[in-house]
Amino acid sequence: MSELTAAPAATAWDGWLRGRAAVRAKRDMQRADSARADLYDLASNDYLGLSAHPLVRTAAINALCTVGAGASASRVASGTWGIHRELETALCDYTGRAQALVFSSGYTANLGVLGALGGPGSLFLLDAHAHASLIDGAKLSGAAWHSFEHNNLAAAEALLRANRDAPAPKPRVVLVLESIYSVLGDAAPLERAAALCAQYGALLLVDEAHSLAAVPGGSAVRAAGLEQAGHVLATATLSKALGAQGGVVLLGGPQAQLWREHLLNTARTFIFDTALAPAAAAGARAALDLATTERIAALAANTRLIRDTLAAHARLAGRIDPAAGAVQSVRMRTPGQAAAAAALLRERGCAVNCFRPPSVPDGISRLRLTAHAHHHPDTLAAVLETVARTIKEVES
Amino acid sequence: MSELTAAPAATAWDGWLRGRAAVRAKRDMQRADSARADLYDLASNDYLGLSAHPLVRTAAINALCTVGAGASASRVASGTWGIHRELETALCDYTGRAQALVFSSGYTANLGVLGALGGPGSLFLLDAHAHASLIDGAKLSGAAWHSFEHNNLAAAEALLRANRDAPAPKPRVVLVLESIYSVLGDAAPLERAAALCAQYGALLLVDEAHSLAAVPGGSAVRAAGLEQAGHVLATATLSKALGAQGGVVLLGGPQAQLWREHLLNTARTFIFDTALAPAAAAGARAALDLATTERIAALAANTRLIRDTLAAHARLAGRIDPAAGAVQSVRMRTPGQAAAAAALLRERGCAVNCFRPPSVPDGISRLRLTAHAHHHPDTLAAVLETVARTIKEVES
Repeated sequence: MSELTAAPAATAWDGWLRGRAAVRAKRDMQRADSARADLYDLASNDYLGLSAHPLVRTAAINALCTVGAGASASRVASGTWGIHRELETALCDYTGRAQALVFSSGYTANLGVLGALGGPGSLFLLDAHAHASLIDGAKLSGAAWHSFEHNNLAAAEALLRANRDAPAPKPRVVLVLESIYSVLGDAAPLERAAALCAQYGALLLVDEAHSLAAVPGGSAVRAAGLEQAGHVLATATLSKALGAQGGVVLLGGPQAQLWREHLLNTARTFIFDTALAPAAAAGARAALDLATTERIAALAANTRLIRDTLAAHARLAGRIDPAAGAVQSVRMRTPGQAAAAAALLRERGCAVNCFRPPSVPDGISRLRLTAHAHHHPDTLAAVLETVARTIKEVES
Repeated sequence: MSELTAAPAATAWDGWLRGRAAVRAKRDMQRADSARADLYDLASNDYLGLSAHPLVRTAAINALCTVGAGASASRVASGTWGIHRELETALCDYTGRAQALVFSSGYTANLGVLGALGGPGSLFLLDAHAHASLIDGAKLSGAAWHSFEHNNLAAAEALLRANRDAPAPKPRVVLVLESIYSVLGDAAPLERAAALCAQYGALLLVDEAHSLAAVPGGSAVRAAGLEQAGHVLATATLSKALGAQGGVVLLGGPQAQLWREHLLNTARTFIFDTALAPAAAAGARAALDLATTERIAALAANTRLIRDTLAAHARLAGRIDPAAGAVQSVRMRTPGQAAAAAALLRERGCAVNCFRPPSVPDGISRLRLTAHAHHHPDTLAAVLETVARTIKEVES
């Protein structure tokens, strides 16, 4: 095989690969997978600190001991274990919904549900800030899709109306939102969106990635009184507030069982993927019992502390995005200053996220600080003074 | 919110949902997510029996205790832990490749790598039996793609030649295969495919889902002498022979590091997905040490035992697909008889898979028996007589 293992003649791929690397270098846009350091955590999505909670660990260990490290097959082959069903029942209890279907990740849950709703004759209307997995799901679904201006329901309604007034055959429409958006941390107007969808005979799909077990009531769909609405479908990840891994589709209303059967029979990322590892399922199941009103209130209090402490600095007062969830973003003046502040904070023992183009929907670079329920307010306040001082340093 | 929670007026979605259910009922094609029963396992993908091995469990428990139930962020945010890097190093050692990048599943690894190779100017040529995740990855990538007749490299070469002879700009081509195909269990001619790709300046992407830690040498790419070939990219799942969860992209040759950086910067299912749970990563890492030559030889011996025992029955002799991996399929005369045999075997304490249209690429229903390294040959032989007898019963 020497002709294969020797350096091959340069191909179009070689030049393409080097060209892409050169573009990243020029734009200073190199991502890194640095191993996690032991820093004060204003970066992870473990909002309630449950990933390492003793009861979550114990539940996961029990699943490892009774089942094993993997589910060893697809959910529709022999990969559904008792813990998957228990987790689905517990997710329904927690959110007030009638049916749940657990996937191996939030990403695959979004791909799966959009694929199962898609095909010719379907039309998806996506908020412009929708997550990558929702965009990919729409693209992959075979449905037509459009995006509309972020959180502008009038723009969404214009598309719904145009569709209603178009000649037959009219597509079946799904409005696709996130309860709380990932980068800016702002909320979608769920009640108005659900009413709009009911008016136009459309479905509403809400990604609860940042709200499940993280907002008052434990679910944004439930807080909006929509948990029994049959035309409202939700997805969520089990890897943020629930501290584990996996994703779920949540369904309500009189046809919830039929929707679950439909997904089980048609969602390709459910059928052709190995089921979620039992330890992750058991961990998420245990975390639901610990995602209490008190922990969620502590998360909200620390989120307010982050906002108020930073806003007390005149330099930052006007630069803090109003956040509905646990993520608080500070707008930075340049991508370079954003990266420099994050790097300096890292040296000073604090992990924050740095979002720069093209990962920000409006082109504005940000430091993103994530609140955690288990942080002591006094320590958090002291760390936030370091954050403010560091931003001042990189900007002067 | 009573107007939302009350039964809504019937919409186009209601009729569509019921219509889809009616089609499934008429075709007798209802899938089920029955919870795993304690049966003799000829169905799961835990080929080497490592999912529940004490050392795999212990490694996973250690990761649970040192990290937690989840990685709590994307690999490129703060979700890369030491165990992810250790697993990547171990996967390189095991396969002889230079670089590895671990994803949350094999499905997302395939979506990620094809997306990172895609876009305008790329062309994917897929074997007609390629897995759902490869087809979805091709569709989502923005590249042009065609499929060619299963395992027909002459057909693939005709497409490569047509592309070479077309006027500029010529697309960059990727030939996409599986080392061992999932349903029929047959192997791809990797050496010839790699030579063909080298001749035409194309990349070869091989999905090693069913060969990693399951074929002699531990990797079909390595067995073909291609582990250092820079134009050969591979993916694999960590949820079959390695008994855990997750996926990986494996790279070799002088540009392996550059390819890894490219994937890390552009694979959307790597960037926008929570990292693999530490327990699954640690379990897969431990399983690599246990996926020895001896265990793989025992798997091959049990695969032969399945084939030879069934072929000794005149009724079945001509109906057994020649399998390169641990999956042995028996062609059945009707979808109904296939389902009936699987159900009767289940009553008799044995789990086998039943594949019916549309899940079989050639429309022929099959019982699929999966060998396992840890089955005692005597017990296995006795169970196989029950399988043969059961098939005879449903056919008479």
